[in-house]
Amino acid sequence: MRIDRKRLEQTIHELGRIGETPRGGLTRLALTDEDRKARDQMVAWMRAAGLRVTVDRMGNVFGERPGEPGLPPVMMGSHVDSVPTGGKYDGQLGVLCGLEVVRALNDHGIRTRHPVTLAIFTNEEGARFQPAMIASGVMAGKIALEDAYNARDRDGIRLVDELERIGYLGAEPCVPRPLRAYLELHIEQGPILEEEGLSIGVVEGIVAISWSRLTVHGVQDHAGPTPMRIRHDALVAAAEVVGGVRRIARELGGDAVATVGTLDVSPNIVNAIPGRVRMSIDVRDPRTETLERARRMLDDVVRAACEREGVRWELEHYWQVPFTPFDPEVVAAVERAARATGAGWRRMLSGAGHDAQYMAAIAPAGMIFVPSRDGRSHCEEEFTPMDDIEHGANTLLLAAVDLAGRA
Amino acid sequence: MRIDRKRLEQTIHELGRIGETPRGGLTRLALTDEDRKARDQMVAWMRAAGLRVTVDRMGNVFGERPGEPGLPPVMMGSHVDSVPTGGKYDGQLGVLCGLEVVRALNDHGIRTRHPVTLAIFTNEEGARFQPAMIASGVMAGKIALEDAYNARDRDGIRLVDELERIGYLGAEPCVPRPLRAYLELHIEQGPILEEEGLSIGVVEGIVAISWSRLTVHGVQDHAGPTPMRIRHDALVAAAEVVGGVRRIARELGGDAVATVGTLDVSPNIVNAIPGRVRMSIDVRDPRTETLERARRMLDDVVRAACEREGVRWELEHYWQVPFTPFDPEVVAAVERAARATGAGWRRMLSGAGHDAQYMAAIAPAGMIFVPSRDGRSHCEEEFTPMDDIEHGANTLLLAAVDLAGRA
Repeated sequence: MRIDRKRLEQTIHELGRIGETPRGGLTRLALTDEDRKARDQMVAWMRAAGLRVTVDRMGNVFGERPGEPGLPPVMMGSHVDSVPTGGKYDGQLGVLCGLEVVRALNDHGIRTRHPVTLAIFTNEEGARFQPAMIASGVMAGKIALEDAYNARDRDGIRLVDELERIGYLGAEPCVPRPLRAYLELHIEQGPILEEEGLSIGVVEGIVAISWSRLTVHGVQDHAGPTPMRIRHDALVAAAEVVGGVRRIARELGGDAVATVGTLDVSPNIVNAIPGRVRMSIDVRDPRTETLERARRMLDDVVRAACEREGVRWELEHYWQVPFTPFDPEVVAAVERAARATGAGWRRMLSGAGHDAQYMAAIAPAGMIFVPSRDGRSHCEEEFTPMDDIEHGANTLLLAAVDLAGRA
Repeated sequence: MRIDRKRLEQTIHELGRIGETPRGGLTRLALTDEDRKARDQMVAWMRAAGLRVTVDRMGNVFGERPGEPGLPPVMMGSHVDSVPTGGKYDGQLGVLCGLEVVRALNDHGIRTRHPVTLAIFTNEEGARFQPAMIASGVMAGKIALEDAYNARDRDGIRLVDELERIGYLGAEPCVPRPLRAYLELHIEQGPILEEEGLSIGVVEGIVAISWSRLTVHGVQDHAGPTPMRIRHDALVAAAEVVGGVRRIARELGGDAVATVGTLDVSPNIVNAIPGRVRMSIDVRDPRTETLERARRMLDDVVRAACEREGVRWELEHYWQVPFTPFDPEVVAAVERAARATGAGWRRMLSGAGHDAQYMAAIAPAGMIFVPSRDGRSHCEEEFTPMDDIEHGANTLLLAAVDLAGRA
């Protein structure tokens, strides 16, 4: 039992044309016309594959392949929205491999005990509406439907209005539903599989994440007549913190990563000493405890930098997600499936959040990773070789059948 | 012969109400309705003081008090535009002290050989239209009139259209005119006079300025699954440069100052490794040669930081102004005047550019500084004590009469 590589390749190619950038990447922000077109195409393919398609109040699309009456489905899901000038694999690949699994089950006339459902989640990226993974968050009961509806993009447009505009404001409640299992195939977005020459990552969980924000209050002044000796430059202190965050990652070692992703200077004028800097600090590690240590180290780094420059500061550790372990039974099923494909595989963790993170709260969940060339993602250079995609899709197929059971 | 302190104080207070912020500062961006109101008020006062008011094609306003026929005037000038949430002294004070000088000459019935002209220059700050000092730049022949007209604010509105809208698109050519001298009273915007307990700075020139821009090209990637060992983080390199710029100022020593005023991160997302950073570097020193040394040091700092992080960079030293010496005769006249007021004074340099910088190219020019509390300016806290303002206005009066000659 194998998926049809040519057909899958063709489908990836076709869906990738919706929102394609001139350099071969993808710009398909959530609930834009491009997202609508991609959804319409997916729904057409899902219906053609015999799936019963429904849409919930968050615009999540579900296509069910029936099993025995009353049994909860095995759900395969991911997303079709992208970041601006992103790639053609992040999200889309999981949905299309799920579609290919359904088609392969049809080809082989396989009936499963549990239904098999393909899911497309709304606004996973968080590039247009914050927070990311908003729709699986609502489904898992972690985000209130009303808050999600009122999320606004940069132009002040509400999520719910865009859902309605593109025709994907469904009637089904967006609530936890009984699931046999949740499976998500996704690109690794890191370099490990490629470096080790492997096709499949059997994902055991998602690392713990800690987000902090720092505001440094210096004294805004004229860059000309203000002697160095009386300066309190918010950016000089902030820059020292950027270096300190890099040092924290080095000192933690192991798989810890630490990133200053945003930094905003005020007034941001060539001839003004920066009076205020705001920045974000993202720290991740497999162990939740490591992040507690990282936050204490960050406190020290910030204090030292700000005291040296004589500036005030506010440091807020505002968001923490503990390590999310996936379900051992689902992980074992994925591992068996990967082994059965004959592909090289390893167990690993995900360094990024995915809809599977929320789904793990309401269902036995697991993920399948395929390699990212040079570890790159969220960029037009994002690429996964077709050999690996084939192994990934076959792993998804075998794991889904394993968990759904043959009728 | 003295100015009228009470009247001057009252006038400063009145003009300061136009565009006043709730916290006592000033927002009066060039060619806005606030600027128009301030200009209208000034023109009314100038006419009431017997001045013949004309407006040139850049909206510069001139009010002439006659002297002997055919002799070039002594011009006293500054500006009435402000930065956003700036203060009530930067610019406005020079114009109002000039007005008070005219009023005092009238009070004392003094006739001068050379005419005495009060000038208000358009858009000195450069906060709304770039570059700064655009109108004195056009007058000095350093900026083309057409380029100035086509300068656009952030909303895309052209300078010339705003000149017309507020009724200050004059008919007089904006070209160099014969001047006996140019005098500008301005706040110091630095701490030196206050620290030394002095009222008057006899300004000998404006420091040399060098502006550079740096773009760092890293590799944008996901902040989660990208291990530290393969990162090329544009912000980590840029932050090291910020620290390096501070070090350059320390190593140059003396009166050298160096500032990173702007820093923009792309994509500026919490969970993305910064792929690109753009920043500005402003270096100033009394000696033009020091800035050449500073640029070589900056080259080294940038190369070291970027090579360490494995990122590409472009460093452009795009704007340099050599040291601008003021006219020795004018400086001597200012010094004599300061001494005659009985106030504490010293010779010093200006660390900031002023309209006097362009005017020095077409006229014997000089400046008078008065103290800035805590050295602060371009902020609502900007303040100069009335005692110092009185000394400054008397210095301006005596220097103007000295240079204009009594009839």
